[in-house]
Amino acid sequence: MPSIFRLALLNPNTDERHTLAMGAVARSVLPEGSEVTAISAARGPTSLESAVDAALASGEIVALIQTLPAHDAYLIACFGDPALDAARELTRAPVIGIGEAAAQAAIAIAKRFAIITTLPRSIPALEEGLERQGIRSRCCGIVPLHIPVSEQGGEHEDTTAAIIDAGMRLVLEQGAEALILACGGMAEVARAVQERVGVPVCDGVAFGSLLAYSLWRCGLETSKVGAYGFPEPIPYAGMTAPSDGL
Amino acid sequence: MPSIFRLALLNPNTDERHTLAMGAVARSVLPEGSEVTAISAARGPTSLESAVDAALASGEIVALIQTLPAHDAYLIACFGDPALDAARELTRAPVIGIGEAAAQAAIAIAKRFAIITTLPRSIPALEEGLERQGIRSRCCGIVPLHIPVSEQGGEHEDTTAAIIDAGMRLVLEQGAEALILACGGMAEVARAVQERVGVPVCDGVAFGSLLAYSLWRCGLETSKVGAYGFPEPIPYAGMTAPSDGL
Amino acid sequence: MPSIFRLALLNPNTDERHTLAMGAVARSVLPEGSEVTAISAARGPTSLESAVDAALASGEIVALIQTLPAHDAYLIACFGDPALDAARELTRAPVIGIGEAAAQAAIAIAKRFAIITTLPRSIPALEEGLERQGIRSRCCGIVPLHIPVSEQGGEHEDTTAAIIDAGMRLVLEQGAEALILACGGMAEVARAVQERVGVPVCDGVAFGSLLAYSLWRCGLETSKVGAYGFPEPIPYAGMTAPSDGL
Amino acid sequence: MPSIFRLALLNPNTDERHTLAMGAVARSVLPEGSEVTAISAARGPTSLESAVDAALASGEIVALIQTLPAHDAYLIACFGDPALDAARELTRAPVIGIGEAAAQAAIAIAKRFAIITTLPRSIPALEEGLERQGIRSRCCGIVPLHIPVSEQGGEHEDTTAAIIDAGMRLVLEQGAEALILACGGMAEVARAVQERVGVPVCDGVAFGSLLAYSLWRCGLETSKVGAYGFPEPIPYAGMTAPSDGL
Amino acid sequence: MPSIFRLALLNPNTDERHTLAMGAVARSVLPEGSEVTAISAARGPTSLESAVDAALASGEIVALIQTLPAHDAYLIACFGDPALDAARELTRAPVIGIGEAAAQAAIAIAKRFAIITTLPRSIPALEEGLERQGIRSRCCGIVPLHIPVSEQGGEHEDTTAAIIDAGMRLVLEQGAEALILACGGMAEVARAVQERVGVPVCDGVAFGSLLAYSLWRCGLETSKVGAYGFPEPIPYAGMTAPSDGL
Amino acid sequence: MPSIFRLALLNPNTDERHTLAMGAVARSVLPEGSEVTAISAARGPTSLESAVDAALASGEIVALIQTLPAHDAYLIACFGDPALDAARELTRAPVIGIGEAAAQAAIAIAKRFAIITTLPRSIPALEEGLERQGIRSRCCGIVPLHIPVSEQGGEHEDTTAAIIDAGMRLVLEQGAEALILACGGMAEVARAVQERVGVPVCDGVAFGSLLAYSLWRCGLETSKVGAYGFPEPIPYAGMTAPSDGL
Repeated sequence: MPSIFRLALLNPNTDERHTLAMGAVARSVLPEGSEVTAISAARGPTSLESAVDAALASGEIVALIQTLPAHDAYLIACFGDPALDAARELTRAPVIGIGEAAAQAAIAIAKRFAIITTLPRSIPALEEGLERQGIRSRCCGIVPLHIPVSEQGGEHEDTTAAIIDAGMRLVLEQGAEALILACGGMAEVARAVQERVGVPVCDGVAFGSLLAYSLWRCGLETSKVGAYGFPEPIPYAGMTAPSDGL
Repeated sequence: MPSIFRLALLNPNTDERHTLAMGAVARSVLPEGSEVTAISAARGPTSLESAVDAALASGEIVALIQTLPAHDAYLIACFGDPALDAARELTRAPVIGIGEAAAQAAIAIAKRFAIITTLPRSIPALEEGLERQGIRSRCCGIVPLHIPVSEQGGEHEDTTAAIIDAGMRLVLEQGAEALILACGGMAEVARAVQERVGVPVCDGVAFGSLLAYSLWRCGLETSKVGAYGFPEPIPYAGMTAPSDGL
Repeated sequence: MPSIFRLALLNPNTDERHTLAMGAVARSVLPEGSEVTAISAARGPTSLESAVDAALASGEIVALIQTLPAHDAYLIACFGDPALDAARELTRAPVIGIGEAAAQAAIAIAKRFAIITTLPRSIPALEEGLERQGIRSRCCGIVPLHIPVSEQGGEHEDTTAAIIDAGMRLVLEQGAEALILACGGMAEVARAVQERVGVPVCDGVAFGSLLAYSLWRCGLETSKVGAYGFPEPIPYAGMTAPSDGL
Repeated sequence: MPSIFRLALLNPNTDERHTLAMGAVARSVLPEGSEVTAISAARGPTSLESAVDAALASGEIVALIQTLPAHDAYLIACFGDPALDAARELTRAPVIGIGEAAAQAAIAIAKRFAIITTLPRSIPALEEGLERQGIRSRCCGIVPLHIPVSEQGGEHEDTTAAIIDAGMRLVLEQGAEALILACGGMAEVARAVQERVGVPVCDGVAFGSLLAYSLWRCGLETSKVGAYGFPEPIPYAGMTAPSDGL
Repeated sequence: MPSIFRLALLNPNTDERHTLAMGAVARSVLPEGSEVTAISAARGPTSLESAVDAALASGEIVALIQTLPAHDAYLIACFGDPALDAARELTRAPVIGIGEAAAQAAIAIAKRFAIITTLPRSIPALEEGLERQGIRSRCCGIVPLHIPVSEQGGEHEDTTAAIIDAGMRLVLEQGAEALILACGGMAEVARAVQERVGVPVCDGVAFGSLLAYSLWRCGLETSKVGAYGFPEPIPYAGMTAPSDGL
Repeated sequence: MPSIFRLALLNPNTDERHTLAMGAVARSVLPEGSEVTAISAARGPTSLESAVDAALASGEIVALIQTLPAHDAYLIACFGDPALDAARELTRAPVIGIGEAAAQAAIAIAKRFAIITTLPRSIPALEEGLERQGIRSRCCGIVPLHIPVSEQGGEHEDTTAAIIDAGMRLVLEQGAEALILACGGMAEVARAVQERVGVPVCDGVAFGSLLAYSLWRCGLETSKVGAYGFPEPIPYAGMTAPSDGL
C-alpha cells in the first residue's frame, strides 16, 4: 500500500491567481488523499512571455525546490518548461513540465495536433520544444491568439471564444485531430473548448500531475547517474551554492 | 467523483502465464478499486519474435477489442505495440502500447536510456519504433540477451542475472542513465534489476497502465476526427466487417 | 541465360476486379515470357481504408505467401505496403510494396513530388511511410480526392477528372514536379493523367513489378541474416505456426 | 510492344578497362536485345578519389551527354554519382547513378546494410550521400579497404580477399544484413563476395542498369517541370552554352 | 602583429561587372590594408541558374585556385557554393562559400529567416543546401522573383522594388525575422532592402569575406586530415592532374 | 570608415582569472583599436558544470547586459551558451555564444569534428546543442577529460597533456578532422594542442569575438521582429522588470 502522494506544483511566475487555479486542477484529477502544494515564484514576472522572463524565472524554480521540503514529485507549471533540467538535477523525485506533458497526451490520442498560444513571438520557442521532444512532425499548426497571459482564464469569456474559434479553424483547415493550449492559464477552459470544438483538448496541468503521479507510483525516480546527477559541489561567489543543501 | 476505472490489458500472444503476471503488475499500481481485465489472444504465437508473429497477432488484437465489452482504456501488452493504430480506430477510449509507454517513462527521468531485448533480430524494429516516436537519439544502446521470450520471467534466475549483467555494461560503457526492458515478460523483474544496477528500470506494463488511467482521468479520449476515426464502413468478404460492430 | 521470371502479385484486399487490372499492368511491363500470378486475399476488406483494414489484410498476405508455390519475387499490391516486413521474413525471394516503389520512381525523375490519395484520414499514414523511407522532405503535398477506393479505376470518368484536376493544382500551386497515385486502383489511369497534367505520374504497380524483376535479375535475394531471417520456430496455439511451412 | 532499349553507361573517369567491364555487367542483366553504349570521359582522372576529381569529371559527364546521340536512359557509373542533377537537366530520358541505385537495392532486401569503400577520405562524402537519400540510419558501417580504385577488379585477388574479410566483420560485428561495394570497379567481384560472406552484395552497375530500364519501360521520363527543367538559355563566355544543343 | 590579409574572391561565373561589385563589397568590410583579388571564371556561364551551369563552373573554380598565387583565404562568390569541397581540398587556406555564409549570419541574429531567389527552379537546390547545413527548419519561406541574375544589381530599380515587396510579404505572412538574398548580384542592394523592410538582410559576400578573415585571424586552416586532404596523386588523361601543382 | 568596435565579453561565471584570460584572447584577434570589456558575473558559480549552475548564471547574464552601457556586440563566454536567446532579446547588438561559434568554425574547415569536454555529465547537453544547431551528424565523438573547469588553463600542464592525448585518439580512432575545446578555460591552450595533434583546434572565444565583429561590421543587428523582439512590458513582482530599462 503506497503512502500519500505529495506533489509540488511550481508556478514559475508570480501570478497567485493562476497558481491557485492550477493547484485546483491538479487536486481534481489526482487520486483521493493526494496532497498538492501549489506555490508561485517568490519574485519575478507575473507571466512568462519572453526568453528573458524565462531566464529570470528559472532561478526562482531552483530556489523554490531548495526551499520547499522534499516532495514525491514536482510539476513545473508553465508551458515553456523553464529550468526543467536544472530541477531534475536537484532531486531524486520525478519532475514533469506541463509543456512536455501536454504534448505527450496529444500524441497518445491523435496523429496530428495543433497548438494555441498567446503571442506570435513564442512560436519559434514552441517549435524548438517540439523538435527537442522529437515530435515536431506531429504538429500541424501553431496559432497565436494575440492575447497576453494576463487575459487568460475562465473569467475572460472573449478569450475563451477566441480559443474556440482558433481551434475550429485548426481542425477544419489544418487537419488538427487534437489541440494543445500552450498556457497554464488556459487549463481552466480546456473542457469547455473540447466540448465546443469536438476534438480532445490537452491540458498539461491535469495530465502532467498524473504523469508525475504515475512515475512515482511505479517507483521511478530521476536518474542520478549522468546528466541528472546532483550539481557538482563547486564554489559559488556571493550566494549559497545549490549543492550545499543536497 | 469519477467512476471506477476499468482497464483492458490485451496480451497479443497466447501465453496465459505472462498475461496473468502482467495483469497483476497493472493491478498493483492502479488506484484502489480499479478493475483490470487481462486477456490473451484467442490463438496465435505464444510470444512475438518476428514481424510475421506480429502481423498475425494484430488480427487477434482487433478481434479482442471487438469481442470485449467496452472498457475505459486499453493497454496493448507487447513491447512491439502491434495493432496500436488499428486499436485506436476501434474505440473512443484511450489505447496505450507498453513499448511507447516504457520509452516515455525513460525520457522523463533520464537523458539517455538503453534497451535490453531478447533476440538480435528485433533490434531494427526497436530502432524504427524509437524513430517513429522521435527519440532515437535518446537511446544509447540496444543489447540482445540471446534469450527467447519463453525463458523470461521472475522464475528464470539465469535470465535475471543476464539482464543485470547487460544493464551494468550499458551504464558503464555506453552512458545509459536508465534502462528499458523490451519484453512484457521482463516486467516482473524490473524492480530487482533497478536495485542491482542502480539506475531506473522502466517497465511499460506498470507505467502504461497508469498512462492509460491518466488519459481517462483527464477526460481525454482518442480523437475520432482524422486518422483515428472509426473504420470506414466498407464491405468485407468472407468475414464480418469490423465497422459492423461499432 | 536466366529462366522465366515468375512474379506473385498479392492484392491484400478482396476486390477481384482490381487484382485482375493490376495483374494486367504488371504483365504489360515485364519482359516477354514473364509469368504473373495475380491473386486476391482469401477474405477481408474489399479495399484498405483504415489501419483496421490493413491489420486484418496483413494476416491474409502471410497466408497467401504460405499457400502459394514459391515465386521468384512478390509484389504487395496495396499502397500502404501492409505486411511488407512479415512477407520478407517468409521467403528468400525479393518482396516489393507498391507504395515504396512509386516513391522510389518519383525521386529518380523529380526533386519534389506530390501524392493524390482517396480519403483525408490516410494522410498521416502516408506521411509516416515517407518518413520511414527517409524522403518526407521530397513530398510537397498530399491531396485527398474524397473518393473511396471502390470508385477508382478507368471506368469512373469523374474520378479520373478529379485526379487530373488535383494534379494540375499540385503542380501549379505546390511546385510538384511529379505525381504519385496512392491507390492500386488508380494504376489504370496513370498514363492518361500524365498526358493531361504534363508531369510524370508514378504508378507503383508497373514500377514495382520491374523493381522486383530487377532485384531477381541481379541475383539479389532478401537477406536471411538479421531482421528478415525466417520467423523463429516458436509454438502457436490454435493455428499452424508459420515457421512450420518453411 | 516496346522498341529496343538503348542505355548510355557513362563512366566519369578515363579508365577504359573499367568502362568495358561495367558495360559487360550492364549487358549481362538487361533484357535480350538491349543496347549498351559504355563510354569513358574524354579526359580527366583515371579514377575518382577526391572532390576535385569529381568536380572535373562532372564537366565531362555534361560533355558526354551533349555529344552522344540521344539514348533511352543514362547510367552514371561512378559511386559518387557526379553530375547527376546536371545530367537530369540535359535530357528527358531517365538518369540513374550507381551509388543511389546500390543503396536502393540494399534497402529493398535488408534493414541494415554496410558499405565497403576504397579510402577513408571518402567516408564523409558517402555519409552525405546517404543523408541526401534519407537513409543514413539504415547504414550500420562504412569500412575503407585502404586500397585505391586502380587496384580494384576481378584480377586483383588480394583486393577480393580484403573485401570478403571486411564484409565478414561488418556482418558479425556491426549487424550488417547486406553489403554495398562503393566502387564501380568492384562490380565484377560482387557475386564472389556474396557467396563467401553469405549476405546479399549490391552492385550499383547491374541494379542501376535495370532501374534505368524499369523507368523507361514504365514510360517515366525525367520531369521537365521545376528543378530538372532544361538549363536556362543564358550566355556562355569562351565556350558553347549547353542550352544551345537542346 | 598579423601580416596583411589577402583574400581571393572567386566568381564562378564570367560576369565581370558582378565580380567587380562583389570585390568592392568585400573590400568595404575587411579591415584596412586587406587585399582582395576578385576574379571571374575564365570561361563559362555569365550566371549560374542550373545544375549544368554549376557543374561547368566547378571546373573553373578548381582552375582558378590552381592558377592564382596562394592567398590567405578564398571566397566562392556564388550562392550555390559550387566546388566548395573541391576548393577546400586544394589549399590549406580557409575557403568560404557565400551561400553558407549568408545562412550563418541569418541564424545568429534571427530565429526564422526567409530567402529571396531568382527563379523557381532553384528552390529545391536551396532547400538541399539548408538541409546539408542542418538548418532547414530555420527557414520559413523561399520566394522566387522570376527575375534572372542578369537583371540583378543596384541599377535595376524594378528588381530592387520586387525584392522589397517580396521581403515585406515574407515578414508579414510567413513570420520571417531576417532575409537572405540568394544571389551574389543582390549584394549591392542589401542595405537598401534592410532599411525598407525593417529586418536584417544578410548578404553572403560581406559576411563571408569576414568569416574567411576570422578563420585566418584565428590561425584556423582547412584540415588536411581526412575528407579535405589534398587530392590523391592519381593519373589524369588528357589534362594535368590537379595534384601535380600542390 | 567605421567607428571603434566595442565588444562586451560576458563570463557567466565568477572566475575572474578566466575572464581576464578570455578578454586577452579576444583582444589579440580583433582589429587594432577594438575595445573589449571583459566582465564576470556579479555572483554565482565559479564555473558552470550543471544545468543548475547554468540556470543561476542566466539571470546574471541578463543583469550584466542591463547594467553595462550599450556595446556594439556581446559575447557570452561559456561553452553552454547560457541565456543566449534572452540576451538577444535585450539588445539590438549582435550576441554570439562561444559554443555555437566554435562549432561554426569547425564545420567551415573540416567535415567531421570531435569535442573535448570536462565531465561526462555534460555530454548530453553538448549533443543537444549540436542538434539544435543542426550539426550533430558532423560530430564524430565527445570525450570527457574527467577534469573540472577549475583545473583548466595554460598553467595546468597535466590538463594540457590530457587534452593532447584525447585529441590524438579522436583523430586516429574516430576520424576527427578538427577539435573543439568545450570550455572557455581551454582557450589559452588551443594553439599548443593544434600544433601537437596536427588538426585545427577551434576555440570559441577567438572565433566568436570575430563573428561578433563580423556581424557588426556588416551592419547586421539582432532582429527585433519576432522571437528576439524586446521583452514584453509585463509586470514584475519583487524586482525591476527588464523591460523597464529598454
